[in-house]
Amino acid sequence: MSDDRASAVLKRAVIIAVGSELLTPNRIDTNSLFLTTHLNALGIDVSQKFVVGDEPADLSDTLQYAVGRSDLVVTTGGLGPTEDDLTREAVATCLGLPLEEKPKLIEAIRARFADRGLEMPAINSRQALVPAGAIVIPNAHGTAPGLWIDRESTVILLLPGPPRELRPMFEQLARDRLSARSDGRRIYRRVLRITGRTESHVEELTQPVYAKWYAGRPSIKTTILASLGQIELHLSTTDANVSVAESVLDDATVELAGVLGKDLISTDGSSLEEVTGSLLCEEGVRVAVAESCTGGLVASRLTDVPGSSAYMHAGWTLYSNESKTALLGVDERLIHKHGSVSEEVAEAMAVGARHLAGVEFGLGVTGIAGPSGGSNEKPIGTVCVALAGPDGATKTRRLQLPGERDRVKFQASQAVLDMLRRTLMRRRQSR
Amino acid sequence: MSDDRASAVLKRAVIIAVGSELLTPNRIDTNSLFLTTHLNALGIDVSQKFVVGDEPADLSDTLQYAVGRSDLVVTTGGLGPTEDDLTREAVATCLGLPLEEKPKLIEAIRARFADRGLEMPAINSRQALVPAGAIVIPNAHGTAPGLWIDRESTVILLLPGPPRELRPMFEQLARDRLSARSDGRRIYRRVLRITGRTESHVEELTQPVYAKWYAGRPSIKTTILASLGQIELHLSTTDANVSVAESVLDDATVELAGVLGKDLISTDGSSLEEVTGSLLCEEGVRVAVAESCTGGLVASRLTDVPGSSAYMHAGWTLYSNESKTALLGVDERLIHKHGSVSEEVAEAMAVGARHLAGVEFGLGVTGIAGPSGGSNEKPIGTVCVALAGPDGATKTRRLQLPGERDRVKFQASQAVLDMLRRTLMRRRQSR
Repeated sequence: MSDDRASAVLKRAVIIAVGSELLTPNRIDTNSLFLTTHLNALGIDVSQKFVVGDEPADLSDTLQYAVGRSDLVVTTGGLGPTEDDLTREAVATCLGLPLEEKPKLIEAIRARFADRGLEMPAINSRQALVPAGAIVIPNAHGTAPGLWIDRESTVILLLPGPPRELRPMFEQLARDRLSARSDGRRIYRRVLRITGRTESHVEELTQPVYAKWYAGRPSIKTTILASLGQIELHLSTTDANVSVAESVLDDATVELAGVLGKDLISTDGSSLEEVTGSLLCEEGVRVAVAESCTGGLVASRLTDVPGSSAYMHAGWTLYSNESKTALLGVDERLIHKHGSVSEEVAEAMAVGARHLAGVEFGLGVTGIAGPSGGSNEKPIGTVCVALAGPDGATKTRRLQLPGERDRVKFQASQAVLDMLRRTLMRRRQSR
Repeated sequence: MSDDRASAVLKRAVIIAVGSELLTPNRIDTNSLFLTTHLNALGIDVSQKFVVGDEPADLSDTLQYAVGRSDLVVTTGGLGPTEDDLTREAVATCLGLPLEEKPKLIEAIRARFADRGLEMPAINSRQALVPAGAIVIPNAHGTAPGLWIDRESTVILLLPGPPRELRPMFEQLARDRLSARSDGRRIYRRVLRITGRTESHVEELTQPVYAKWYAGRPSIKTTILASLGQIELHLSTTDANVSVAESVLDDATVELAGVLGKDLISTDGSSLEEVTGSLLCEEGVRVAVAESCTGGLVASRLTDVPGSSAYMHAGWTLYSNESKTALLGVDERLIHKHGSVSEEVAEAMAVGARHLAGVEFGLGVTGIAGPSGGSNEKPIGTVCVALAGPDGATKTRRLQLPGERDRVKFQASQAVLDMLRRTLMRRRQSR
């Protein structure tokens, strides 16, 4: 790397994911999310992303397009040993560089096979072909090395496709070569998660607040995004000075939090289950869950959080009326009178879970996730959620949720977890 | 649509997702998966995918690039009423078409607002701007109409970003306008899901089989993909004759199934929980699940399948030793002697679940999902799974699973569901 080149700062990146499987209905490129996180942390914006198949002409056209439009082109995939793996060749052709075989690389690949008692297949020698002048980036987890090509005003970085190979390789590059080419400017973000409101309602509430931050210095960009069972407000700003950037984001977040009140789940991107888990920890209380239509999803989400064994005590998935009665003690007359999908049965499930597990809080969910089981009175998507607390008090709620089975399940789990979160917040405030 | 244009067949599509949020670490374009499914069904290959932000220059460059390289360019997003929504303008500029305001469209948008008792905000009139000559595609679920522009050798199709608006609109187009421009050739696929083997092992077994199908007519393309807890083998072929295409895929699938044996989960893309559910139905047996480290995920996966109430009877999430003893009757001496993560405790959980729920099969899972709780003897990722069957027989297995908490959870759920699947297959065969 010459001194001149070392001083050229990288600001705009394009990511090209290579692989025909990424153009089928079955697969999606997710490496770019990981890469974007780390590039943004270095102040490098991702301006475009491409997915291209194993077709030499398409790959070479896309490379040509990308090289002219960005400081950094990152390709992922297509570095394997088979005939489908064309990235090395396409990059060499696009840049007019000859491919050279590196004997040291062949030795390293051969040694990798030998370590596992295997002989290197002949085709793997293709992975030792390197465009002239490229710097080889060792791959600790596979045979395909990465390649760093510093070319006039653009760096072209070739990375292997498998995440377990790409990630450590890129993290190392972010620490050394890429960090050396960053200007200290960084992109800082906040993600505010909001529940209990529609997208347009959130916009109405927050627009007067965030509009003025947009005009500020540094300017804060805002995007509102609706996802299943929650709304996200994304803030981002760019500055060379970390404390300036963090401080404007902090101020904006505090002001938005004031407007959003208890509907705000988190300001650091934490999920509802993480926030609820933290509140359970803080309050030193435990929870048990009785689920019908969510079928274990509430328990599974609670236990996705590291350390959840401190507060998640027990869960029941009770898919039949008999199991609700036999295993949780729900009175069968209650089911007979109100139906298994009713606020009364949800409440009895919450009370039963709390009592049987011997914990402070019990949650109950019962509903019709579909695609069958709906009626005029209780159509598909009817869900009742309930909470039983340490003071003997209970809360219940009946919801009508839109969408297919998996969407109903998720939104129902969101509703009951949010009921617990709000209860814990009130409890914390009242102390 | 003139007769000449109607006869031009669409074969290659490019999809452009528009929106700066799709270039952040938080969001990914998934509309393209839906579009690819439907385009492939019409014999239209997706040759490239792009993600571009709300930057006029980038969007216009990308459009220019795409229009020259495909028969069909589909854009998603950027049709909203705000200043960020630039797709209409960029397409008009790129194609040299003036934008015209359509009074009928304004009326329709105004009526949509009026239906909800609202006045149309002035900015929404932007959504009535249409590049000259474009055909307006009504949007039944939002204010942004789609646009179909038939331009020399390329069709440019502008669709709104929200899936609930895009999907029905595109399904209608697939039935009429797009179908009229397809040549009857279709892309047919099979996805073989495989468990219990590594990617290279699957390749070794299947390569001699699929190599000969590649040389056949019609040729079958094969891709092997490793995902968490399973391997996928994707087959695809293209032919104008559905029975020819289906028949070569059927033959190839039968031959591959012979080689893969019981490791083959499904040949139609069905998930492990769907296949296991079908086997439970066929056998007329029910299951109950006792989970520790998977925390409800096994129950949740089983109940993701419509109709699972027929066989999924009850589930327990037992995160503490006390709850395993108190709620499921696991002998505390067993936990004391072998530790809670042991084949013995997993077995006792499976037996307890089966017994308490009064069903034919019980499953048990206990393990250390991390990030803490590991030891030298039982490192993070140690998982024990067990099955108790109607004949009183039990099976247990101890696994060492790689990765983070969520990966350990998923792979553990995969292992115990697969244990049940294999048991049910043997049962079916022995009848």
